[in-house]
Amino acid sequence: MRDIFNQELQQLGSDLESMASQVATAIERAAESLRHSDIVIAEQVIDADERINDLQRDIDDLCVMLLARQQPVAGDLRNVISALRMAQTLERQGDLARHVAAIARGRYPEPPVPEPILGLILQMADLAVQAGQNVAQLVSSRDLELAAAIQAGDAELDALHRRSFQMILDPAHDMSRQQVIDAVLMGRFLERFGDHSTSVARRVAYLVSGASMPGTHDAQDADALH
Amino acid sequence: MRDIFNQELQQLGSDLESMASQVATAIERAAESLRHSDIVIAEQVIDADERINDLQRDIDDLCVMLLARQQPVAGDLRNVISALRMAQTLERQGDLARHVAAIARGRYPEPPVPEPILGLILQMADLAVQAGQNVAQLVSSRDLELAAAIQAGDAELDALHRRSFQMILDPAHDMSRQQVIDAVLMGRFLERFGDHSTSVARRVAYLVSGASMPGTHDAQDADALH
Repeated sequence: MRDIFNQELQQLGSDLESMASQVATAIERAAESLRHSDIVIAEQVIDADERINDLQRDIDDLCVMLLARQQPVAGDLRNVISALRMAQTLERQGDLARHVAAIARGRYPEPPVPEPILGLILQMADLAVQAGQNVAQLVSSRDLELAAAIQAGDAELDALHRRSFQMILDPAHDMSRQQVIDAVLMGRFLERFGDHSTSVARRVAYLVSGASMPGTHDAQDADALH
Repeated sequence: MRDIFNQELQQLGSDLESMASQVATAIERAAESLRHSDIVIAEQVIDADERINDLQRDIDDLCVMLLARQQPVAGDLRNVISALRMAQTLERQGDLARHVAAIARGRYPEPPVPEPILGLILQMADLAVQAGQNVAQLVSSRDLELAAAIQAGDAELDALHRRSFQMILDPAHDMSRQQVIDAVLMGRFLERFGDHSTSVARRVAYLVSGASMPGTHDAQDADALH
């Protein structure tokens, strides 16, 4: 019984790792599609999201099955519940990467926003990519230094998000309304991607240390407006 | 043991009802603060969100405790897992109501966007209010007709969201960039509020019927751009 349980917990861990790595790839490609106005890569992100959703479904089923059959307690229970939630967070991150790619695709062959807004959005995208990679590594290594790096990166992303509003409001930057819409949405998607990365980082830190409850908000979104 | 379990399940149900009813009040007030540029009501929404967050924390703790001590199976397990997720969804809805109120507060004493965009946003807000009320009623009554009404209302909300982009893009409507930003964000927040209501409706339908798994996406967000 315990053997099967351990096997299933391992399966759960490897499914989560695979999900996190697919999300990292999705945001990398979304950033690339934006940087190079590459519609082929944008389509790849959009198509690949279905597989991320499928993985969440698998993880959900496995968690519910584990809870029902193995009735885990203490650390094992904490592991299973955290997996349920991390899978949900990763699924949202896949959606957000897809939304960014959809904007790149929608405006092809032009970049969706002009410079210097584009440069700022790309900086945000790079931070999101870094967050995605760190999360993927954290899920497999559980290295708490990565968790701290993810939180620091998210603070930077938030600061850039605030700056994006200032830039959009600056009349010196010529923008159409469509470009304003796209800039606002991309900024919001990337900022939320960062929030979710921090949420995963907090959960892993909680699992490893067992010491402090993570914020129960799955992805703190205290100040969407700046 | 079973007695305590039943008591705890009842507690869980009444905490969820209370949370759903507080979220309904939050979105009602957010809509009112927007309609009447009422900063006092906007502040109430913002302050009250902390209580919604606290309730989620309580529900989380209760669920984990129930899983650890009572090791529920079958329908009871399904109930507890659904409660965990519904609480998470309701917490997000509280955030979204707060974001809408924060825009109303930020632009006070002016309405954040001019007519006719304001009228459209208020229509969206009314649908979100209806959704919030229906969800609160559904969580206590588990009446599946309400679940269907919530899904229908969400389709309407999505249609209005699509129209909001058309209106914003129409050069006949004079808008500052700040107003474009606010309109885009409010549209997005209200649309997401609707998505989350549908997600709760699906979960309750799943609990009652037991027949079909709900979409695993907690709040489908297939097409953010329209």
